[in-house]
Amino acid sequence: MNGAELLLRTAAVNGIDICFANAGTTEIPFVAALDGQPGIRAVLGLFEGVCTGAADGYGRMLGRPAMALLHLGPGFANGIACLHNARRANTPVVNIIGEHASWHRDADPPLNMDIASLAGTVSGWKRTSRGARGLSRDMAAVIGAAMTGKIASLIVPIDYQWSDCRNVTVVRAVPDFKPFDAVLIEEAARVLKGNKRTAMILGGRALRHEGLMAAKRIKAATGCGLLANSFPGYMDRGGPLPAVARIPYFPEPAMELMDGYDAFVIAGAHDPVTFFGYHGIPGRLIRKDRKKVVVATEDHDPIEVLEHLAGLFAVAHVPAGPGVNNAPGLSVPVGPLTPEAVSLTIAALQPEGAVVVDEGLTTSFPYYPASHGLASHCYMTIAGGAIGYGMPCSVGAAFAAPERPVINIQADGSAMYTVQALWTMAREGLNVTTLLCNNGGYHIIDVELERAGLKSPGKSARGLVDINGPVIDWVMLSRGLGVPAVKVEDTGGLAREMKKAITEPGPHLIEMIVKNP
Amino acid sequence: MNGAELLLRTAAVNGIDICFANAGTTEIPFVAALDGQPGIRAVLGLFEGVCTGAADGYGRMLGRPAMALLHLGPGFANGIACLHNARRANTPVVNIIGEHASWHRDADPPLNMDIASLAGTVSGWKRTSRGARGLSRDMAAVIGAAMTGKIASLIVPIDYQWSDCRNVTVVRAVPDFKPFDAVLIEEAARVLKGNKRTAMILGGRALRHEGLMAAKRIKAATGCGLLANSFPGYMDRGGPLPAVARIPYFPEPAMELMDGYDAFVIAGAHDPVTFFGYHGIPGRLIRKDRKKVVVATEDHDPIEVLEHLAGLFAVAHVPAGPGVNNAPGLSVPVGPLTPEAVSLTIAALQPEGAVVVDEGLTTSFPYYPASHGLASHCYMTIAGGAIGYGMPCSVGAAFAAPERPVINIQADGSAMYTVQALWTMAREGLNVTTLLCNNGGYHIIDVELERAGLKSPGKSARGLVDINGPVIDWVMLSRGLGVPAVKVEDTGGLAREMKKAITEPGPHLIEMIVKNP
Repeated sequence: MNGAELLLRTAAVNGIDICFANAGTTEIPFVAALDGQPGIRAVLGLFEGVCTGAADGYGRMLGRPAMALLHLGPGFANGIACLHNARRANTPVVNIIGEHASWHRDADPPLNMDIASLAGTVSGWKRTSRGARGLSRDMAAVIGAAMTGKIASLIVPIDYQWSDCRNVTVVRAVPDFKPFDAVLIEEAARVLKGNKRTAMILGGRALRHEGLMAAKRIKAATGCGLLANSFPGYMDRGGPLPAVARIPYFPEPAMELMDGYDAFVIAGAHDPVTFFGYHGIPGRLIRKDRKKVVVATEDHDPIEVLEHLAGLFAVAHVPAGPGVNNAPGLSVPVGPLTPEAVSLTIAALQPEGAVVVDEGLTTSFPYYPASHGLASHCYMTIAGGAIGYGMPCSVGAAFAAPERPVINIQADGSAMYTVQALWTMAREGLNVTTLLCNNGGYHIIDVELERAGLKSPGKSARGLVDINGPVIDWVMLSRGLGVPAVKVEDTGGLAREMKKAITEPGPHLIEMIVKNP
Repeated sequence: MNGAELLLRTAAVNGIDICFANAGTTEIPFVAALDGQPGIRAVLGLFEGVCTGAADGYGRMLGRPAMALLHLGPGFANGIACLHNARRANTPVVNIIGEHASWHRDADPPLNMDIASLAGTVSGWKRTSRGARGLSRDMAAVIGAAMTGKIASLIVPIDYQWSDCRNVTVVRAVPDFKPFDAVLIEEAARVLKGNKRTAMILGGRALRHEGLMAAKRIKAATGCGLLANSFPGYMDRGGPLPAVARIPYFPEPAMELMDGYDAFVIAGAHDPVTFFGYHGIPGRLIRKDRKKVVVATEDHDPIEVLEHLAGLFAVAHVPAGPGVNNAPGLSVPVGPLTPEAVSLTIAALQPEGAVVVDEGLTTSFPYYPASHGLASHCYMTIAGGAIGYGMPCSVGAAFAAPERPVINIQADGSAMYTVQALWTMAREGLNVTTLLCNNGGYHIIDVELERAGLKSPGKSARGLVDINGPVIDWVMLSRGLGVPAVKVEDTGGLAREMKKAITEPGPHLIEMIVKNP
């Protein structure tokens, strides 16, 4: 057994079953060793952002890490934007990065970079292997770190990958969550029982089914509000689950929402802040005079914490039915594809079990409120704000749940960032329906320009926002990469094509010509 | 005048005339200010790798910096791979990176990253602005650093961009090359005059016309060899210029070439090393027992150094004619598109003044030796080995030399990395002919797999090298992004379409179905 084979055996023993890869010469032993580990599926992405974004999607769905195999510093760099989102989503991700032979780095060959510094900008854990005999320990450590919801990155020089590693013990990975703090949980219970208007802000694993069911019990006992950050990484939704309000993206409605509460209990969420700094508006959305208890940080398991917290309340009766009042029974509106109409159409047609990957930005802002109280589904957003996450995330989600339909609401400007993902969908026959929102520009920047008082920008400024010249033909682009595609211009067309796409196996792209409001 | 306007005025005064941009909310003042600086052309790229790659191409052509405008850490990260190549090519590049408001960073909003650390991995110079009143000084410093052939990166918080900057003096940029070392130059002259077999290894600006003409005089006086690193960033070639041998990519022929010399004079080049570390082969290609004089490092101006060095030789007669013996008069071969046939066809048809951007990899290895002694042209390669440089570099080159035809020999696997560049070519009507080498896979990795003794990799390994399922339809992809495209399967078709593409204005893509040898 050589080092690469030992790495892969350790990965397999510790539950890694998929590797999204774009490898090069420094990963050749690893690539060769994949043939000896049939339990780990190797999936090619034609750009590293596809690989890391797919690892993000896979990890979000299953709560356990996928592996991304990346080529040296430039390969890792290409994956950073999607890893940034994964980091903000607290997704478990294991990165394996090949490195020049340990004895060759000093020669500073052309592809040489400071990979450790690069990895450090986005990883919660990183290490460069120092010898072949430590590779199983290294792999177990990187997986253990990832299991707690971190980006964990291991850099492995190629000479160690080739080295003889017979008789090395395979090491087990252990997730190292911090134990919860019983005193803090009791304090949170006191706040929730008091007569302040209190909201729980849930994030990370707290937004998974078990966390939300515990939150539902607490809400039933205390009447507290349930909030999430503006862009949660992953949420289970619908069915019996309680509705959770997302803190709005724009600062004024966000402040209005937050000002309605006197106290906050934070479990696994980020301290809520405005997405950008706006002149005259405070960056932190919880005022200093408000009570705040952080019962679970990123280093705790918030599900465990919420279950303990719920145990402190005697709940007579938790409503068994849907978490919100507005019954389903939505119908497809008639007319042009406005953001409202697109959102209502998707909400009306999404089947039970749907996996909704939302990078629709301005087009899909109305989707979330429209889809409370539907049948059970899950929902993902652009947690770190780095555009281009939606299509790769859908790739990973489709591998994680091959039997469920993945619906990707996808803004056009963002889609161009990682358009290579379509090819992997085609190659692997993934059940992803991409609803491409073609509004011909970076409309969110338009909105921000207007907010900044620039209502009629000049030619140069407009040229950096408008992507309508030439018009991108998404149908042709998609077909060129192997994904069947159609164009629709009204809700009737969208409904017809969406029903077809969701029932037919394999990937589809529906280009929606969207009218900005 | 606000901070953004001051930055742009300083840029314009210091010779910046183009800005390749993909901006977001934190660059809005900068975007708005572009309308007030008509001397700086704003060009949109639909992915940051296109912007930084175009800045690389522009800087390689003209030897002076273009500007790339990037959005926060994730935007910069998307541009790193192309900047890595630019760094290895010693291209002058100015990066301007928008940052959250200085008072908002502590709140750690979703898009927050450690941009300075990220920029440090690829920049020879970096700074985060500390106040609005220093912005002109900051901009002059970043341009001055870039002028010496560095990636120079300036991070500018948005609040400074909005700040009042009336009555701030606009600062002039000064390139800060290190003065040359006369003692070293004399030592180099002694070595060249001695009776050792000596080669000069030229790199950076030494491969531009003036540098090569000085090298030609030295060669005429001493009979020395002229070499370049395997992947030079930019070379003037043909016409009166001497032929320069590239040190081969594979280590065995590289060692054979280097072992033929007893002494080396290095001017602006990297100390030659093997591209990867190969077992049993030394990483540094100049043996320890050889004489080595580094007359110009990356911090010197190698043209100045070579001219001084040439002045130490009394040259009776420098041949005026072409630098090499093989006359032009190449003819187009007949038959299928093998790497040899593709290379000979391009060499036979490229017009005087052609700008050749070579990322053909395995398909274009034969092009360089086939194109010695042609009419004047210039030639660029993947200096840092980070794939995806060719199409963006062609965008930048076309802006730098709008009257010259740009010929981009482009491998398919690499092309997918920054395919968004085609859209900018279409939008701006750039005279770029993309010769897309479709060989259906990462053939260079195939070759490296074989070198590693893996002649018949299994299913997983093959799946990470072969990109033929589904076959990418490059004609459709290109048309979807607005660039007219055709497919050719033999040299006759290639010759016909290449002639047409070079004479018709605007971009064209020719998909060549290449047979691997």
